[in-house]
Amino acid sequence: MSKPTPISGFPEWTPGQRMIEQYVLDRIRATFELYGFAPLETRAVEPLDQLLRKGETSKEVYVIRRLHADAEGATGDDQLGLHFDLTVPFARYVLENAGKLQFPFRRYQIQKVWRGERPQEGRYREFVQADIDIVDRDTLAPHHEAEMPLVIGDALRSLPIPPVVIQVNNRKVNEGFYRGIGLTDPEAALRAVDKLDKIGPDRVAELLVETAGATDTQAKACLALSTLRGSDGSIADAVRAIGVEHPLLDEGLAELVAVVETAAEHSPGLCVADLRIARGLDYYTGTVYETQLRGYERFGSICSGGRYDSLATAGNVSYPGVGISIGVTRLLGLLFGAGALSVSREVPTAVLVAVTSEEWRAASNRVAEALRRRGIATEVSPSAAKFGKQIRYAERRGIPYVWFPGADGGPDEVKDIRSGEQVTATAGDWTPAAEDLKPQVR
Amino acid sequence: MSKPTPISGFPEWTPGQRMIEQYVLDRIRATFELYGFAPLETRAVEPLDQLLRKGETSKEVYVIRRLHADAEGATGDDQLGLHFDLTVPFARYVLENAGKLQFPFRRYQIQKVWRGERPQEGRYREFVQADIDIVDRDTLAPHHEAEMPLVIGDALRSLPIPPVVIQVNNRKVNEGFYRGIGLTDPEAALRAVDKLDKIGPDRVAELLVETAGATDTQAKACLALSTLRGSDGSIADAVRAIGVEHPLLDEGLAELVAVVETAAEHSPGLCVADLRIARGLDYYTGTVYETQLRGYERFGSICSGGRYDSLATAGNVSYPGVGISIGVTRLLGLLFGAGALSVSREVPTAVLVAVTSEEWRAASNRVAEALRRRGIATEVSPSAAKFGKQIRYAERRGIPYVWFPGADGGPDEVKDIRSGEQVTATAGDWTPAAEDLKPQVR
Repeated sequence: MSKPTPISGFPEWTPGQRMIEQYVLDRIRATFELYGFAPLETRAVEPLDQLLRKGETSKEVYVIRRLHADAEGATGDDQLGLHFDLTVPFARYVLENAGKLQFPFRRYQIQKVWRGERPQEGRYREFVQADIDIVDRDTLAPHHEAEMPLVIGDALRSLPIPPVVIQVNNRKVNEGFYRGIGLTDPEAALRAVDKLDKIGPDRVAELLVETAGATDTQAKACLALSTLRGSDGSIADAVRAIGVEHPLLDEGLAELVAVVETAAEHSPGLCVADLRIARGLDYYTGTVYETQLRGYERFGSICSGGRYDSLATAGNVSYPGVGISIGVTRLLGLLFGAGALSVSREVPTAVLVAVTSEEWRAASNRVAEALRRRGIATEVSPSAAKFGKQIRYAERRGIPYVWFPGADGGPDEVKDIRSGEQVTATAGDWTPAAEDLKPQVR
Repeated sequence: MSKPTPISGFPEWTPGQRMIEQYVLDRIRATFELYGFAPLETRAVEPLDQLLRKGETSKEVYVIRRLHADAEGATGDDQLGLHFDLTVPFARYVLENAGKLQFPFRRYQIQKVWRGERPQEGRYREFVQADIDIVDRDTLAPHHEAEMPLVIGDALRSLPIPPVVIQVNNRKVNEGFYRGIGLTDPEAALRAVDKLDKIGPDRVAELLVETAGATDTQAKACLALSTLRGSDGSIADAVRAIGVEHPLLDEGLAELVAVVETAAEHSPGLCVADLRIARGLDYYTGTVYETQLRGYERFGSICSGGRYDSLATAGNVSYPGVGISIGVTRLLGLLFGAGALSVSREVPTAVLVAVTSEEWRAASNRVAEALRRRGIATEVSPSAAKFGKQIRYAERRGIPYVWFPGADGGPDEVKDIRSGEQVTATAGDWTPAAEDLKPQVR
């Protein structure tokens, strides 16, 4: 077999990087659970017609078929595709199980998703997302929109990554403002403003005129709105100072202020209202979120989401919700690329028990068993080679300690192979330095 | 949208069942790490030609293609399929990264796999496997084969499931014995014996004659071998008592005895040599393992594997290994079906903080924050409804405690809603009963 090569867009971490990923996922999960989100995992596949319902992502979907399915099976109504996010499967799950679920339903979901997009830095074809959503039946109280930044702030703060800023806006502010100045197609205006980072204000002003039917004055007002930011009630004053009035604008500003003020009480500096944040997706109807890593703003948002009035509908019943998603693979890929994350060793092992000779392997096994019973990750040397060679086995993997079972009734000894310090020890009570027990992520 | 329906073979657990699955996966992972196995996760896809290399599983493979890929792209050499086990991807990973890995390389891998087989009880199209393998370059010492049952025994014993018996055999025993009695196609004989559970000894005897060229006497000897079992060195005596001799038989018996004796020292009763265990797969060359749940033998093996001399080869280098795989979804699906596993509540939440009125929501948020900081999973009530309704919110989810922030400067109180007991408390030092802190799996 010739040497295999990586497949573009399908990243694979080294065991050391995978340890970092597990550490990150464990921390995120722990925070989600502290806030009472229940775990959910959905199957990897959905019916193709469900995946294509929104239309815009049709190019990204991976279709699956059994290799030996007959031609009909491969093209029929029962065609399946890999999910490209965790929102579509969650909406389907809620409809399928609505009778069994308690609403409001708070769930987290940490899974791989697949998109057939062209791979580039920070954009993959297979990647892990960590989502939380709160969904209710018929109506969802707006205070849930203020809770999302608290959860995400705690989750991201628990990670060995730079501090983050969560930027929030509210669709009602934009729509109310655009209607207040007389625009009749606020969605077109929003799509134009969403391109600010990519094409700059001059080109956005042109787009507003071309696609949203704005006059030059209206376009200027839209751009003025998009420059405002703030972390407290003053953001509402700044918007009102432009002099535009609309009931939807008032409703949006009240919600926006509640979000930033709730966040400010929880952790000052975490959350900022930034009226430039638009998020292109049509289905958001209230608060929208993006998240920047301080010092790595060039990465773009690593955690985004928003409020939607209708996650799903069944007959007369609709399910409004609010959700946010951490792009875990994207975040890790970028930080690995920047050399900003490392782990103290490539294996979980804290102790290697040396083997004096193959006949005495059982004695080494007994030491290992005693250490493991006390939660100390331990390997037994794979060979009874000279001790120097066994120590090199540990060194090459970053295992900090080598244990030597006592010969001829003598006591056991354990050596810290970094300092060379060697002490007598018994497996029933010896304990490694606290920072050596588990691999340390930095 | 009409109500969606489940897809046969793609199981989805309820949030409560998912909690049990996470608990099980956490325990398995902790044991694997205690034995020094490093984590690995490979991409979900492999080149189709790699997946089909062994031929026999070709019908089970799911092929993927981008919906809008052109016809050439969809049929070319770069076709991808979903992996159907974790061994093929691991072999590919070892070859791809051989230059960077330290051998012997010990890794665990816990992931979903996909097979297009016809679904039935305990057999899924999407399921989770938890694998460990040890792979070395050129040669792998046989003591690694004795280590596998220790790891698996500890991992399964840490779970809330019935006790297990690991049944082991050694391919060299069978092949040496078959050759010793004069059979020239030991693999055909093994395939016949592998069908014992399905078709019974009479039909296996016929098969041995028909497909392995055995005489009636040879067939009887093969069946005699398959009836033997034992947990110590006496198994070798029992085999030798049949009176067959072959160097490969001696080698296999020595290895088999080492495996059961190592296991007996570690945990008596865990491991039994059972010479009926054959495992059909061609690539095993030494010890093979199957695992039965006591009282649920009808489920079949829930954890299987073996020794292979050549996981992969590249030029002159071959990579022998030994591995074993826990069928996690299969195990859980069967135990869920038998009503043998449950969890004490459907949400992680230990405490619901009541909200006196929407204006005082921030006070409830502060209580929740103080409790979470101390590791107590806490939700704030979604509405400021009458307390009776807020308590029912907790009741319906199995949340054991409801917290009432003090009104008018009075002290906070917390109520155990199962017993009705209500006490004054402060969020900085109140602690729930230990068994209420996390959902309990039984």
